Amino acid sequence: MSGTVYGLGLGPGAADLMSVRADRLLRAARHVAFFRKTGRKGQARQIVEGLIPDGATEFAMEYPVTTEIPLSDPRYNALLAAFYEDCTDHLRSLAQAGEDVVVLCEGDPFFYGSFMHLYMRLRDLVPVEVVPGITGMSAAWTATGAPITWGDDVLTVLMATLPEAELARRMADSDALVVMKIGRNFGRLCRALQSAGRFEAAWLVEYAAMPGQKVTRLAEVTAETVPYFSIVIVHGQGRRP
Amino acid sequence: MSGTVYGLGLGPGAADLMSVRADRLLRAARHVAFFRKTGRKGQARQIVEGLIPDGATEFAMEYPVTTEIPLSDPRYNALLAAFYEDCTDHLRSLAQAGEDVVVLCEGDPFFYGSFMHLYMRLRDLVPVEVVPGITGMSAAWTATGAPITWGDDVLTVLMATLPEAELARRMADSDALVVMKIGRNFGRLCRALQSAGRFEAAWLVEYAAMPGQKVTRLAEVTAETVPYFSIVIVHGQGRRP
Repeated sequence: MSGTVYGLGLGPGAADLMSVRADRLLRAARHVAFFRKTGRKGQARQIVEGLIPDGATEFAMEYPVTTEIPLSDPRYNALLAAFYEDCTDHLRSLAQAGEDVVVLCEGDPFFYGSFMHLYMRLRDLVPVEVVPGITGMSAAWTATGAPITWGDDVLTVLMATLPEAELARRMADSDALVVMKIGRNFGRLCRALQSAGRFEAAWLVEYAAMPGQKVTRLAEVTAETVPYFSIVIVHGQGRRP
Repeated sequence: MSGTVYGLGLGPGAADLMSVRADRLLRAARHVAFFRKTGRKGQARQIVEGLIPDGATEFAMEYPVTTEIPLSDPRYNALLAAFYEDCTDHLRSLAQAGEDVVVLCEGDPFFYGSFMHLYMRLRDLVPVEVVPGITGMSAAWTATGAPITWGDDVLTVLMATLPEAELARRMADSDALVVMKIGRNFGRLCRALQSAGRFEAAWLVEYAAMPGQKVTRLAEVTAETVPYFSIVIVHGQGRRP
């Protein structure tokens, strides 16, 4: 009998924003895997501090590369593909030996997450189940204290890694906006919002639902770079009786 | 001492997809409010069946109108505004009498939800806290068994209530798509997807994470109308090592 690999959506950062289902699976886990940057604790692992059962085996999957090589370099893809293959082999062996494995995922596993790369490789080999989670963007708009979308509002989710002109065009053409993967693209993102006429309405949310959560009008941000866990929000203004 | 009104995101439908925080607040609740159509049990109320403490007071907020009057009719707005004022008065009185009140919200309260109309009216009067939830769309893409967004994919969330030409234009201009509020707009939605060249790639998810969940390629759907809790998904195909 094969075990199951669970892609466990942990939600945005606060442990009690995990679903009851994820919490139950985690507290019964014998094998817990998670991604992290080399030398870091890992954000997903951090969220579940104190919740992993005694005696469970932990498997840290350390990215061989993050931003040291540009995405466009073929070596980047080759290194990551080999890494995901290795991780897949390990999880597959455990499942084939009859063990369930929980893979910790920040936010929702199918929404811009690393687990998807394992999922696509594993799903024809062993049973895989995905537990959805509260996204980081939900925590970000909740933190601003204002609803993100009303009535027929169009919501566009953009990565700040896109070209500036494309960002600006899409920002001007949507009611509500969420921008993620900001980090070193912060300057470009601000210029795009300005071209689109949305800068004054934008909010920066750092560490949503985590210790250190901070909500600032973008126009009042003085820093030139922002943490990785930053999300920019522009609220929709749609129909409201 | 004023009580607090909690907008409780219940998630997409399965009770164990509620957050640990929402579950804890619900199990301690003395006053539980929820929206429903007249004569229905109410989807939010249904999700928490068996979880409301004995002795808690329930307050059903019944929409005076749903689809009987067109949205464009001024009477629609007037009726709903009066209804939201009444609900606000009731929740405010409870909070001002020192009672906490839990308002049950399907999905995430700030994402196209009715609670937002109470939130905006209450927030300057009494303490209001919002607990984010897993959205229906997360449950829908999870149900399809394929990730929604990869790498730099652009995700657009559209309401099927928009004009057909606008739907088609936006569908052609996004990597990943989520379409909600489908119901009687199903035919128009399908035509828009066809004009945009996205029809063959689209999936219909009915009752995501609820009993009766059903996932079908849109091209294989023979019905002419679909249930209210239906979401159409087109997956992004972005960068993947």
